[in-house]
Amino acid sequence: MKVYLDNSATTAMAPEVIEAMLPYFSDEMGNAQSVHSFGQRAKSAIEKARRQVAALINASPTEVVFVSGGTEADNLAIRGIADAHRDRGHHIITTRIEHPAVLRTCEALEANGFRVTYLPVSRNGLVDPDGLRRAITAETILITVMLANNETGTIQPVEEIARVVSEARSSGLAYLNLHTDAVQAVAKTPIDVKTIGVDLLSISAHKFHGPKGIGALYVRKGTRIAKLLHGGHHERDRRAGTENVPAIVGFGKAAEMARAQLDERMARMRDLRDYLERQVNSLVSNVAVNGDQERRVPNISNMSFVGVDGESLLIALDLKGIAVSTGSACASGSLEPSHVLQAMGLAREEVRGSLRFSLGAYTTREEIDYALSNLVETITRLRAMAPADELETAHSI
Amino acid sequence: MKVYLDNSATTAMAPEVIEAMLPYFSDEMGNAQSVHSFGQRAKSAIEKARRQVAALINASPTEVVFVSGGTEADNLAIRGIADAHRDRGHHIITTRIEHPAVLRTCEALEANGFRVTYLPVSRNGLVDPDGLRRAITAETILITVMLANNETGTIQPVEEIARVVSEARSSGLAYLNLHTDAVQAVAKTPIDVKTIGVDLLSISAHKFHGPKGIGALYVRKGTRIAKLLHGGHHERDRRAGTENVPAIVGFGKAAEMARAQLDERMARMRDLRDYLERQVNSLVSNVAVNGDQERRVPNISNMSFVGVDGESLLIALDLKGIAVSTGSACASGSLEPSHVLQAMGLAREEVRGSLRFSLGAYTTREEIDYALSNLVETITRLRAMAPADELETAHSI
Repeated sequence: MKVYLDNSATTAMAPEVIEAMLPYFSDEMGNAQSVHSFGQRAKSAIEKARRQVAALINASPTEVVFVSGGTEADNLAIRGIADAHRDRGHHIITTRIEHPAVLRTCEALEANGFRVTYLPVSRNGLVDPDGLRRAITAETILITVMLANNETGTIQPVEEIARVVSEARSSGLAYLNLHTDAVQAVAKTPIDVKTIGVDLLSISAHKFHGPKGIGALYVRKGTRIAKLLHGGHHERDRRAGTENVPAIVGFGKAAEMARAQLDERMARMRDLRDYLERQVNSLVSNVAVNGDQERRVPNISNMSFVGVDGESLLIALDLKGIAVSTGSACASGSLEPSHVLQAMGLAREEVRGSLRFSLGAYTTREEIDYALSNLVETITRLRAMAPADELETAHSI
Repeated sequence: MKVYLDNSATTAMAPEVIEAMLPYFSDEMGNAQSVHSFGQRAKSAIEKARRQVAALINASPTEVVFVSGGTEADNLAIRGIADAHRDRGHHIITTRIEHPAVLRTCEALEANGFRVTYLPVSRNGLVDPDGLRRAITAETILITVMLANNETGTIQPVEEIARVVSEARSSGLAYLNLHTDAVQAVAKTPIDVKTIGVDLLSISAHKFHGPKGIGALYVRKGTRIAKLLHGGHHERDRRAGTENVPAIVGFGKAAEMARAQLDERMARMRDLRDYLERQVNSLVSNVAVNGDQERRVPNISNMSFVGVDGESLLIALDLKGIAVSTGSACASGSLEPSHVLQAMGLAREEVRGSLRFSLGAYTTREEIDYALSNLVETITRLRAMAPADELETAHSI
């Protein structure tokens, strides 16, 4: 049995999404910039998808800029604001728990004359809006705080942060822009850009059963950003490059499905995740669920199994056909312990023993049961081996 | 009948390419950064594709960086060199006939303290390597000259330019880097990066029956470039963002097919293009083929029909199901006359009457015949109407 519980890393495409894309690979393969009818049909397919994506977050279609994915969306938001508003100030505020696409872009700007404040988070993984308020200066041009954390699923108080930003603007800091990386939040929680009050919001299609290689940056009407990719006049002159028509069409379909099925998917994933956590809690000792228990997306469960090495657990489960992760896929290979769990102040042992289970819209109860029985068995086995394991680690250092 | 003769704008994917991609949409949908076996299979699929793309241009697989397309490849090459070597100099040399992805990126750098020399071209559309030699200064860090022009198909003397660069380096200008935008040349002419002698080379998959949304930048071993997209450690830390596994797999397949079928495809496209031009020349008066007649890719024919408006011709042909273009898709919508044909010194009338026919690997003789008969008929009709047309143009100005 193959059980994929790493849907925060990426998801399988919905069959309907594949279906929607197929014609655009061959018969309807026009370049959307072409004047002829092949081009016009491609263009109209893109505009339909733009409306579908806009509807998912209650934006206007003209506020949606298609990009190659979440990383480009984050880079475009941050560099786009920094480049367009650097004459107004050189200060950026973010948090210690952002995705590498945000953290590394901020670091690149630090090497380029910007000052960046990295806000701490609580033990539950939450940013404090009051702390953020105190960090704002007359030099601040951008605040970027993620909507849902990719490792814990914790939902940040972005609406409250938007109120702080709005107050700061009223008191004269007119060039303050608010960005949120919503890559893990879209299709996992209702998002209304008008209510939430952000200027920029990053989306990635492959996190909710859409295609890889496509994403969007919501840019609120009136928000000025510089371009990251120069060339043709695509995307109302905000992102050059031949439009990835099939991927955009698939993204639109995935957005349409996510919107129509949001309540149902959320309830279903929440039930399965709660069941997983209840069962683990009753069958395994010394386990803790990481992140805020109230403010969270319904599909992520990050648990620490004390006395077990998360990586060993991951590999043992993989041998049984079960895919989970330690930290995020984007940070893997780095061998560094999770920067998110460290920022939350977890003990070394808790970080080391952490594992992320992330559900998708198609995860079943049978899959959870299969994962559970193997998880319990593996933890028991690994804990029995623990002393030897510790010894080996000591040797190899 | 539908006849698509706009393959320089984009192509239909080869059935084998679609076939190769399909598993990676659903069952094999892992994130290549994931540690588990879903991730490992995705990673190994990417590395296979990297070898296929590398083989097409005789590069080492580690020299291939996957990006979202030709525009990103050009931006990464130019900005990547400018950012990494700006302490060595602020001068860039390019030509007046480059793709907007190169020209607009150079212009953005001009707004940022760089000086850019835009070399002229001959009536045939060729850059003069001696003129280029004279433009090099101690401040020059980058020379970017396209391999095949996207509007005329003219192949630039990049090998000779590489020798000029090599001489300049020998005389102490050690930080000079040579980039070529090979988007229209790959799979239309044999390319060996070792022979051609460039440091950076841009490729786009959708120009040769691969998927949209994927491309590559060849970065010669030892060439230092700055990143454009920051985030995870993907692509040996040269391009962040979840790898677009299905598109990369499709790109690899398209590259493998292009390599295996290169001679056959070239011969076939050349025969059909020559047939098209011969027939047009014998059936239509006052027509000229633009660009060099020797140094050219086999799939592009850019012709000027004096006394006819190219745009009207395009639209009339579109009504018959025939897709062609005036200028490039990336510049369309701009209403400006072709910067390429203007740089070549064509008369206003010749630019206005120009049309690009671009063939693909699957173009047939029947399609060319259908296009020919409609082209001849339409030109005859438009020329008969010409005086009225001219009058209207005069009115609308």
